[in-house]
Amino acid sequence: MTPLHATASDLTCDVVVVGAGIAGLTAAERLVGAGLDVRVVEARDRVGGRTEGGEFASGTVIELGGQWVGPTQDEVLALAARLGLETFTVYDEGASLLFADGGRTEGEDDAFGLGGEAARAFADLVELIDRTAATIDREAPWDSADAVHLDRMTAAQWLDVHCGHADARAFMDTMLASILAADADEYSALHLLFYLGSGGGLHRMMLTIGGAQESRVRGGTHQLSERLAEALGDRVLLDEEVLRISGWDAEVAAVTTSHRTLRCDRVVVAVPPTMATRMSYDPPLPAGRDIAQSHMMPGSVLKFQIEYPRPFWREEGLSGTVMSLDHGVSLVYDNCVPDSDAGILVAFVEGAHARALHTLDDQERDRRVIDDLTAFFGDAAARPTEVLQRNWSEEQYTRGCYGGRFATGLWTTVGAHLAAPCGLIHWAGAETAAVWNGYIDGAIRSGQRVAAEVAALSPAAPTTSYR
Amino acid sequence: MTPLHATASDLTCDVVVVGAGIAGLTAAERLVGAGLDVRVVEARDRVGGRTEGGEFASGTVIELGGQWVGPTQDEVLALAARLGLETFTVYDEGASLLFADGGRTEGEDDAFGLGGEAARAFADLVELIDRTAATIDREAPWDSADAVHLDRMTAAQWLDVHCGHADARAFMDTMLASILAADADEYSALHLLFYLGSGGGLHRMMLTIGGAQESRVRGGTHQLSERLAEALGDRVLLDEEVLRISGWDAEVAAVTTSHRTLRCDRVVVAVPPTMATRMSYDPPLPAGRDIAQSHMMPGSVLKFQIEYPRPFWREEGLSGTVMSLDHGVSLVYDNCVPDSDAGILVAFVEGAHARALHTLDDQERDRRVIDDLTAFFGDAAARPTEVLQRNWSEEQYTRGCYGGRFATGLWTTVGAHLAAPCGLIHWAGAETAAVWNGYIDGAIRSGQRVAAEVAALSPAAPTTSYR
Repeated sequence: MTPLHATASDLTCDVVVVGAGIAGLTAAERLVGAGLDVRVVEARDRVGGRTEGGEFASGTVIELGGQWVGPTQDEVLALAARLGLETFTVYDEGASLLFADGGRTEGEDDAFGLGGEAARAFADLVELIDRTAATIDREAPWDSADAVHLDRMTAAQWLDVHCGHADARAFMDTMLASILAADADEYSALHLLFYLGSGGGLHRMMLTIGGAQESRVRGGTHQLSERLAEALGDRVLLDEEVLRISGWDAEVAAVTTSHRTLRCDRVVVAVPPTMATRMSYDPPLPAGRDIAQSHMMPGSVLKFQIEYPRPFWREEGLSGTVMSLDHGVSLVYDNCVPDSDAGILVAFVEGAHARALHTLDDQERDRRVIDDLTAFFGDAAARPTEVLQRNWSEEQYTRGCYGGRFATGLWTTVGAHLAAPCGLIHWAGAETAAVWNGYIDGAIRSGQRVAAEVAALSPAAPTTSYR
Repeated sequence: MTPLHATASDLTCDVVVVGAGIAGLTAAERLVGAGLDVRVVEARDRVGGRTEGGEFASGTVIELGGQWVGPTQDEVLALAARLGLETFTVYDEGASLLFADGGRTEGEDDAFGLGGEAARAFADLVELIDRTAATIDREAPWDSADAVHLDRMTAAQWLDVHCGHADARAFMDTMLASILAADADEYSALHLLFYLGSGGGLHRMMLTIGGAQESRVRGGTHQLSERLAEALGDRVLLDEEVLRISGWDAEVAAVTTSHRTLRCDRVVVAVPPTMATRMSYDPPLPAGRDIAQSHMMPGSVLKFQIEYPRPFWREEGLSGTVMSLDHGVSLVYDNCVPDSDAGILVAFVEGAHARALHTLDDQERDRRVIDDLTAFFGDAAARPTEVLQRNWSEEQYTRGCYGGRFATGLWTTVGAHLAAPCGLIHWAGAETAAVWNGYIDGAIRSGQRVAAEVAALSPAAPTTSYR
């Protein structure tokens, strides 16, 4: 942690961007392109936010945070291409495994081995969810037809009404937990439908091929941020924690960091809402804005990357994909990379399962995950070369992934404050996105939106728009 | 707001208490009594936290925050007596008014004019709630029988199951909103039952005479804190915002304020959970603790004190008590004080109704409240001498009242972290109380608990216990 009262030279610029995740860096790139003098202030010693590179002892680079991209995520795909990053399609051959009610089922289709009547009930429910999600106004969920009604019930209550098949419902609960990193009783039905709708629906979100888990960036998604930051050069200030934003209601704002004060015309806050809550504001933020950012709860997830000498599951005709309703690990994918012959699995522990691991030490968490993998794949899974883990709720400058959720009653009473500028402050980040909310693609779109907001307002902006 | 980098002399003491509300001051008094060297650091320029004195232009002092005390709130009653403060019984003669479904009903009983079958259904529901609440373990709600089940449904869902009478249910919703400052779909059934049970049940909580609104402190409840602070003298440091707590996992902690660093053996954090979230910690707090404090949502309430030349409602045989299911103002009481002949009403706007007022200016809020009071009491209510208002969600160092609530899924996964010490940090405040959680009495009890925790651990503590 940086010292609180370190000193560096105060400075003045047009725009200060708080947070060097993909949202903040996207905004900064566009604002620089618009001719503005920009600084990006980042508390960590790295850029990338919820995308982060990790490295096995073998030298293989792997993602500790967000890692997949897929069709309709046009902004992240375009950015990767523009930055010269390759994408590759994930491994999706062979049978997936479903563990439920003590049983093990192999399946080849999208339903992970869910069979017969349960599969039909599940497919019907997906179809209903997606039809309903399509009716939600992505720019203003609170203005949607039936918004208040949907906001006053939990997603679990809505599912209770619309799905009478116990097995299909249990499967849905685990599927949704894997997408929202929270259990369906922990957010409103309006939140569920907005969130899924923002990504084009549950069907798209849950798919590997054709969906949100189709592709990856060779060498890791954190390179998106690293390359943007490289181009921004010394405009990016690392290891500086923003403590206070003052004067946002006046003509000039002051951003006080652990090192200095930066004066500027506009501030872009591009950190998760719970992080925006942890900075101080002078004058204090209006009540509605404060409630919106402080009440948006990030998900609970631990991500494990497990390296083996080789992808032994492939030899047994398995894809590596597992969904379990019976274990702490609810979701596993083959996570091998083109630059290594090693077998790599990625395993997720989410929602209440994740919170149950919080008080255990890292070794015990690893052990439990390996136990679950051994239950899924047999003894070969018991002897990994190495395990990397990341509990995003422990990360001081993130405090939860993937995105954020609103419990009942919030979208319709304070949701409009999430992305609305507050004096000189503009708000970006994946939680403010209307499209692919909570995803890398949504974060990029939020950075683009906020850059357009600021560039349109700034006296220094040229009359032609960026690009 | 205090400057961020003001300087004052660093110092070393045994215990630093963060927050000079009644919890922190109670803890400090006890720890000083135990022979320890204590400092209380308070961000505001006043003590008292969620109790605060206000003054009409007439000179009459009134409470902008917590104001009532009642039977079984033994700690606050004992403290008032010990500090030489008088209490007085509220005015409770004449008829109360109920507004519902566009109608107006006068009533003399506890049910505010709710009649017939609805009154019986409501009484049955109160009885069921209180019987169930009595089964919740107040020290460890997560260990209660049926805790997980109750934690996975909202209070509204639980009420749906247990009350089929629409009018009784609507009345209950408003009654609960007046107690929790949040709507019944915004917290779990376990939270409802714990919270009500902590105060001895809904029946006791909703009563005036014989209940939580029976008495007041002459001159205001803020005097409790003021007198404790007076005795603590220059141990109380006002206008110093705590920015960071470091070394809580080591032998000596350091509390960095806007003015200086205080080194100490133990830290007592006695601020609402959402405020504890807004300080920084080095090392970062464990995930479970962070989730517990950041996810506990404070209530939404605006409190209005309205002064009239005389209590005109009494002349019409009215008690001044109003409950309305139809207006933004849901609850009104006669709030006259012994030291003035003026008529004073107190009016509350809570939950979603409160959030709807946030974006309005003070004058418009006043106007809406006066409109509602005029609908309740006629034209005489339209011409107050003065209106004082406090939106507790706007208060930079509180951000909501009365207490906090947990949405679904939190009590059973992170609730145990709320009051459990974290290294050298001990947690106090009304939200950590097992008895009268969220009330002044609970805050005092939390201060006593935490003082006992610290005194028992401190090498400087004498072998005899306090008092």
